[in-house]
Amino acid sequence: VNFIGQGEKMTYCVGMKLEGGLILASDTRSNAGVDHISTYCKMHTFHRDGERKIFLLSAGNLATTQETISLLRQSVDRENSGHLLSLASLFECASVVGTHLRSVLEKYNHSKAGVDFSATFILAGQIKGEEPRLFLIYPEGNFIEATPETPFFQIGEAKYGKPIIDRVLEYNTPLKQALKCALISFDSTLRSNISVGMPLDVTCLEKDLCLSHDQIIRIHENDPYMKLLRFQWGEGLRSLFETIPDWDVDFQFNPRES
Amino acid sequence: VNFIGQGEKMTYCVGMKLEGGLILASDTRSNAGVDHISTYCKMHTFHRDGERKIFLLSAGNLATTQETISLLRQSVDRENSGHLLSLASLFECASVVGTHLRSVLEKYNHSKAGVDFSATFILAGQIKGEEPRLFLIYPEGNFIEATPETPFFQIGEAKYGKPIIDRVLEYNTPLKQALKCALISFDSTLRSNISVGMPLDVTCLEKDLCLSHDQIIRIHENDPYMKLLRFQWGEGLRSLFETIPDWDVDFQFNPRES
Repeated sequence: VNFIGQGEKMTYCVGMKLEGGLILASDTRSNAGVDHISTYCKMHTFHRDGERKIFLLSAGNLATTQETISLLRQSVDRENSGHLLSLASLFECASVVGTHLRSVLEKYNHSKAGVDFSATFILAGQIKGEEPRLFLIYPEGNFIEATPETPFFQIGEAKYGKPIIDRVLEYNTPLKQALKCALISFDSTLRSNISVGMPLDVTCLEKDLCLSHDQIIRIHENDPYMKLLRFQWGEGLRSLFETIPDWDVDFQFNPRES
Repeated sequence: VNFIGQGEKMTYCVGMKLEGGLILASDTRSNAGVDHISTYCKMHTFHRDGERKIFLLSAGNLATTQETISLLRQSVDRENSGHLLSLASLFECASVVGTHLRSVLEKYNHSKAGVDFSATFILAGQIKGEEPRLFLIYPEGNFIEATPETPFFQIGEAKYGKPIIDRVLEYNTPLKQALKCALISFDSTLRSNISVGMPLDVTCLEKDLCLSHDQIIRIHENDPYMKLLRFQWGEGLRSLFETIPDWDVDFQFNPRES
């Protein structure tokens, strides 16, 4: 199915939960139909200065993610019980996001239009008194939390950028190195899939320190560091490829031994 | 959908059409239900010594690919008109494979079981008098041919292994280097997705020379070259990652400029 329609994957987001804190990154391309491709922020924030910093990264159907985020903001604005700025733990926040997401999807899933209305979220951040935490929230409303053995989640067009993370990321990777890893992962994705697009939004949430500052940086196409990274990684890969010896094998005289 | 059922992607195959000939590679893991995971050859051959060498790589529903291959073999055995060993061009062979595939799928697609019966083929080879050619055949029975601008096709679990091919492969890449590239692509896929499994079947079809020999090599888990390649590529990537400078950025004082 090559048709890019409502609900098609046009996103890549990654969240990493490390010893020193969190790294989050998302692209900004989205669409609501083939003729409606635009830049949308997929990194949504819920802050209370000095007390909590919560990020929601979204992938999937744009209408679904927008409606879910709007419901979550409305709860905050109306000071409903149990909203993202009042709950005591990030675990409870994940549960609330899942509940809203499921309720939105239940409205539309009876449609026979063949549209995929589903959406997925990464929820990450820190509430004072807790460690930084990272959750992946499924369209069904349930969710999983990152652990030292599984220190990262990806949503959207995740496969192109997974091998490099699998190879270099560990729980004790320093934040700056993890950020570099995330950007290389984006570079691989951007090169292999035109539907994921610059600019990128990235943030680095250092444990405890993150509670008091706004930290999202938008990386544009011509960003000097991104250009350096893309060049050095691309050239480095080609050099590495050259250094690996070719296979000295003769296909004329090696019948299959199965 | 994480359920591995009938029709789930458990395959990775790649075909490359280069100036010097063709490189083909496939894994051998397949399944027909969660409790039925086995080794299946996905590289099927139709040869007439000295005159033609045709390969079919398959991905998708195992029942569909087996039935399609069986129908193609039956046509050859019964000497029906227009079979893979009698047709004058590889273009006509692609058309016949597409016709059989479509006819198989038409039988099952009315099923309401929610099963994905679809399958995809890579058809490649050489018929005396023609250049080596490479086709991708869709479940609908239509097909596309590789060109110098698009010198490779992947089927199955293709995304993990696409970035390295995008970066290093060109039409004039020598066959041995292209083979190395294909094996690195498999290494990335095998690391990131347990449902694609060793051993691998690979072949290298040197233009014209390929008509007279059998050339499939099965690469097992403990193959010395594959081990060398995996080690050097993995270590090399980690070293390259280290050499790229971290981003000297302060997230505390860079508010988003959107």
